[in-house]
Amino acid sequence: MPDTRLSEFSYINWLRKRIPSHSSVLIGPGDDTAAMRVDGSRPLLITTDMLMEGSCFLLRDAGAHAVGRKALAVNLSDIAAMAGRPTAAVVSLGLPREGGRAIAEGLFEGMREIAEQFDVPIVGGDTNSWSGELVVSVTVLGEATGSGPVRRNGARPGDAIFVTGALGGSIRGKHLDFVPRVRESQLLHAMVGLSAMIDISDGLSRDLHHLCEESGCGALLDSAAVPISDAAIELAATSGKSPLEHALGDGEDFELLFCVGAEDGERLRQHSPVPVWQIGVMTEQGVALMRDGTRHVLPIMGYEHQLAHS
Amino acid sequence: MPDTRLSEFSYINWLRKRIPSHSSVLIGPGDDTAAMRVDGSRPLLITTDMLMEGSCFLLRDAGAHAVGRKALAVNLSDIAAMAGRPTAAVVSLGLPREGGRAIAEGLFEGMREIAEQFDVPIVGGDTNSWSGELVVSVTVLGEATGSGPVRRNGARPGDAIFVTGALGGSIRGKHLDFVPRVRESQLLHAMVGLSAMIDISDGLSRDLHHLCEESGCGALLDSAAVPISDAAIELAATSGKSPLEHALGDGEDFELLFCVGAEDGERLRQHSPVPVWQIGVMTEQGVALMRDGTRHVLPIMGYEHQLAHS
Repeated sequence: MPDTRLSEFSYINWLRKRIPSHSSVLIGPGDDTAAMRVDGSRPLLITTDMLMEGSCFLLRDAGAHAVGRKALAVNLSDIAAMAGRPTAAVVSLGLPREGGRAIAEGLFEGMREIAEQFDVPIVGGDTNSWSGELVVSVTVLGEATGSGPVRRNGARPGDAIFVTGALGGSIRGKHLDFVPRVRESQLLHAMVGLSAMIDISDGLSRDLHHLCEESGCGALLDSAAVPISDAAIELAATSGKSPLEHALGDGEDFELLFCVGAEDGERLRQHSPVPVWQIGVMTEQGVALMRDGTRHVLPIMGYEHQLAHS
Repeated sequence: MPDTRLSEFSYINWLRKRIPSHSSVLIGPGDDTAAMRVDGSRPLLITTDMLMEGSCFLLRDAGAHAVGRKALAVNLSDIAAMAGRPTAAVVSLGLPREGGRAIAEGLFEGMREIAEQFDVPIVGGDTNSWSGELVVSVTVLGEATGSGPVRRNGARPGDAIFVTGALGGSIRGKHLDFVPRVRESQLLHAMVGLSAMIDISDGLSRDLHHLCEESGCGALLDSAAVPISDAAIELAATSGKSPLEHALGDGEDFELLFCVGAEDGERLRQHSPVPVWQIGVMTEQGVALMRDGTRHVLPIMGYEHQLAHS
């Protein structure tokens, strides 16, 4: 199977070169969300994600309710990764002809559950039947909070690197029922200076590489400090990979990966408003992993949506 | 083939009952766009449309450039139908694995052409490969202008009914290369009081029924006044339908159908800033067609995306 996300990144780079700058655009393609200037109001955030049967979920296994919930939740996670507050969602559906109405209702109920939890009204959509399999595309709007959107490109050497939760093995359930870190992100943004942030969708290793590339820095992770989920440990019993490899490469964790200056790092270690784990520090260059006292190059691991492996 | 749009409307009615009201939502599902309250700024419009291979276009015939252009243009037409000004677009793609990159580039070039024409920056997106056929989902934001968004529900008996262009036969080309009536809508909105407006995507007959249902009125069309496209006349030579039937039922015209009070109707007949045709008047109830001096019930005709017929 081709690595679809790699080609997405090369396409985004192709796009970036071709999209002219525009006075109303604060942040264009290539971050967790775009941001638009709005007269007299906070910057507007916008993000979109398409989930497709067979590559992002298996409808028969997950059920329409869980797929609907996830389709909205992944976008809320993108808003969280900019330290934004989600304000509205629209939904486009491509429904299989067979059973499409029941699927649509199940999807909506799943979306509504999480929409209400985060007070995000679903304001519109486009519903279609077609001869293909289920496609769900959700766009979420948000508004910037506090000192503004937190991008991927502001980390500096010496910054402390944190994550908001245990990683790996999300295929065992978390990829569907994760709680997007909207509240955590707000609380952190209000307390410390977040220099860079991304949500972990492609896996810690790959998303850390993204953050480093955008920031023009390197990173050194402490392998012993990476919080590893129980699911990663369970998978490792039979997968032939270590729990750490699962934590680094599985993806779809939807935890936040963020950087703060050294002093703020100390403050978070002392009394963070939400659970966080420091996993390393930013460096001048190179993405590396300290393991048993030795420094290893950290390759871009994993990705290829997990369902492709299962 | 099932009528996918009918089930869309029943789904929207189902949705409307389930979506709670929200203080930030000015217009929820069921109009051409949704509208959100934004502090200190004009209301924000948002609309989304998904186009799918085989039901909305045939990639092999149309080419990726034309499909990309259309995917953005249909959303601009929705913004026009609210008398809004488009401000930004995001794009989600589900690309077939075979040739996906070339398709993505063609789509983008087609979008960019019309994006630049209407000064609408493409600010972000989500690009995926999958085992299915091409799916393109575009979301466009806009801002309300003048006295605010023009809805479908404000027409009153006695209002004059207008359209902005000739109808029917769009399958012969216009469904791909139409120019969304953004500028026309702005000029009309600045000059007259638009009581209700919709863009003609499902066909004059069906979209007039929508407008009447939302406004709680009827309508009487003058069959001789409906502007009929050359393409409709050409199709009628072999289709077994009359040119008028094509104009009433084909859909994908992306002209505006709008209502104004009687005095404004007179002003537009005298000196409209853009080409418009008065095609009838709003009535108390019933949607009817005057033809050769006789009043006929106007059924909900056509729809089922045209490509299904070709």
